[in-house]
Amino acid sequence: PLSKLSNVGTTIFSQMTQLANENEAINLSQGFPDFMPDPELLNYVDHFIKKGFNQYAPLGGMIALKEEIARKIENSHQTTYHPDSEITVTAGGTQAIFTAIAAFIKKEDEVIIFEPAYDCYEPTVELFGGIVKRFEMKAPDYQIDWTAVKGLISDKTKMIILNNPNNPSGKILTEKDIQELIQLVKGTSILILSDEVYENIVFDGEQHLSICKYPELKERSLLVASFGKLFHVTGWKVGYCAAPKVLTDEFRKVHQFNVFCVNTPIQLALAEYMKNDEHYTHLNQFFQEKRDFLRKGLSGTSFELLDCEGTYFQALKYNKISDKNDFDFATELTINHKVASVPFSSFYKNKINENVIRLCFAKKQETLERAIENLSKV
Amino acid sequence: PLSKLSNVGTTIFSQMTQLANENEAINLSQGFPDFMPDPELLNYVDHFIKKGFNQYAPLGGMIALKEEIARKIENSHQTTYHPDSEITVTAGGTQAIFTAIAAFIKKEDEVIIFEPAYDCYEPTVELFGGIVKRFEMKAPDYQIDWTAVKGLISDKTKMIILNNPNNPSGKILTEKDIQELIQLVKGTSILILSDEVYENIVFDGEQHLSICKYPELKERSLLVASFGKLFHVTGWKVGYCAAPKVLTDEFRKVHQFNVFCVNTPIQLALAEYMKNDEHYTHLNQFFQEKRDFLRKGLSGTSFELLDCEGTYFQALKYNKISDKNDFDFATELTINHKVASVPFSSFYKNKINENVIRLCFAKKQETLERAIENLSKV
Ligand SMILES: CSCCC(=O)C(=O)O
Ligand SMILES: CSCCC(=O)C(=O)O
Repeated sequence: PLSKLSNVGTTIFSQMTQLANENEAINLSQGFPDFMPDPELLNYVDHFIKKGFNQYAPLGGMIALKEEIARKIENSHQTTYHPDSEITVTAGGTQAIFTAIAAFIKKEDEVIIFEPAYDCYEPTVELFGGIVKRFEMKAPDYQIDWTAVKGLISDKTKMIILNNPNNPSGKILTEKDIQELIQLVKGTSILILSDEVYENIVFDGEQHLSICKYPELKERSLLVASFGKLFHVTGWKVGYCAAPKVLTDEFRKVHQFNVFCVNTPIQLALAEYMKNDEHYTHLNQFFQEKRDFLRKGLSGTSFELLDCEGTYFQALKYNKISDKNDFDFATELTINHKVASVPFSSFYKNKINENVIRLCFAKKQETLERAIENLSKV
Repeated sequence: PLSKLSNVGTTIFSQMTQLANENEAINLSQGFPDFMPDPELLNYVDHFIKKGFNQYAPLGGMIALKEEIARKIENSHQTTYHPDSEITVTAGGTQAIFTAIAAFIKKEDEVIIFEPAYDCYEPTVELFGGIVKRFEMKAPDYQIDWTAVKGLISDKTKMIILNNPNNPSGKILTEKDIQELIQLVKGTSILILSDEVYENIVFDGEQHLSICKYPELKERSLLVASFGKLFHVTGWKVGYCAAPKVLTDEFRKVHQFNVFCVNTPIQLALAEYMKNDEHYTHLNQFFQEKRDFLRKGLSGTSFELLDCEGTYFQALKYNKISDKNDFDFATELTINHKVASVPFSSFYKNKINENVIRLCFAKKQETLERAIENLSKV
């Protein structure tokens, strides 16, 4: 057979964005901002392009950017990564995740995933012959039962993939979760791939507990983050992977043959912009206001608002409105009420339907107002 | 064992560039220009960034760019690819190659490679469990013996990887080569991955014979090209893969989980710039002048100039100067004579040494003059 991924279609995010465009609906499906990034950042790109930085970057990334990344991690989590040998700039968070899986997962290796999960983890593991073991977190509170997770571990377990804060549920890991995880991996050689692309979007004064804060976890972890999510430039496609040298060495073996390196002038612009910490420390507050505005606007409707502790996604339960499955509901909502969302079932291998959809609130005030107006009529 | 690629180190291009920098040598190793790209192209990036195109592109690429790519191929090779379903914009030629291999090569599939070969093909095939069968082209003329190639074909042969014009030898495929290839694959389901990133750099009035010109080949081929090489912006990391829909569908299944999509404003800038065909039709002439200048400058030296039919690389045989192996020779040339090159042995799995090094002549007049001066003293 020609196809290696015969049960893979087009990612739900592209499907829903296309449906939104076709129906001229407000697109709260795919996770991207509809407002302008900071003009200061935009100007830096032009600056470095005109200064002549248009050729290959080193394969690990521009040193200026790697140093700023190391500084950000140190400021945020009080731990050090060596810029040159432990940080790799990638063509977005997705490429970092793909490359990490490619570098370590072999045929029959088992990988533990927490669902609902971003839809690239599972097919990527399968592409390399790995076997996915799932723990399904469920509405309304998406708790992790660590005893059940322990039951998924075997001597073939090679990696655990975390996503904290979690897309789409908006849950963050607690100190208790982290301690359970530490117990779980103690004495094993299980790797952790920690997708923390929403690390700077955590609400209500809660702390983002990065994997790298905990030495017992850091030593076995690949930490992935994204400038697209951090600076409202999802279309620039730059992210990074931070990991101990022994893991970074393996990561880079694949990275160099996958993309070799990442856009040079954009890396330099990001590095320059990162010199000012305030360019990201205000994000929690910035998105909390958007979240609160959306929640307030929807509080009088028939939608039930689930908790949102982080990310720029709000989960809505619609079972008082319809008993359709969430994919059909989201499709009709786009067509009839001109608001595009993502059905939660897309984040479960077994397409579990709990009548929940996801809205992206990384949008202008005016966009959120129009969406609230439309949703109020449902 | 932790490592999946235990015999892979850092790519030779990074090694030699680093050695060049450490020794303040003229860097003719890694293939990139040292002159400025066209200011018109640079301005377009700023234009689209400021206009607000900074969020995710569609996974196949921006339609404006895909249409220009289709138009370029049609103009150059009189064949049509459907922009939407047969062209995918990638994060450079390397990512296109990696993704094509990832999408089709399974454990024990055999892949035929012509050496000397760009160093990403082989480890990528191995990462997916494929087995590489090599035909070694040899100095001084790097001919292909198609009878020998036929001997490499088995019922496990899944793919043939071509690189035309060839990096590092500068050879182009002749009409006779293509006809042999057509006979070879006739009646089989062998795929062709054709790396044509130097398609617009062919000299002496010769034609670049793209795989897509020949229907019997096009139907089974993934054609890869690169804007980095075309417009002197290797650090922008944008390329593409053109292939019949049935192949593109599989390619995109992996692409969407590997990088999802590619830098939006850069894609739009490239699309705008491509509207004027003259932005690439002059390239043959432009690089031919550089080639001729380098060859003339080196003609009185002890280096022997091998043929250069295409690419921006010149191969030099140095056996009148030294009997050191080419890696040691290139290293010493960098340290003692301040000119960095790439040893040809790096392009052979078995590190075949024929006392040949590669120089990149995509350089300013002044850089070439300094290099010639230094090399004249060897
Ligand atoms: C790469 S498209 C998906 C973007 C995203 O983060 C999301 O919508 O979950
Ligand atoms: C990606 S680094 C190598 C660049 C190149 O094309 C070469 O030097 O052969």
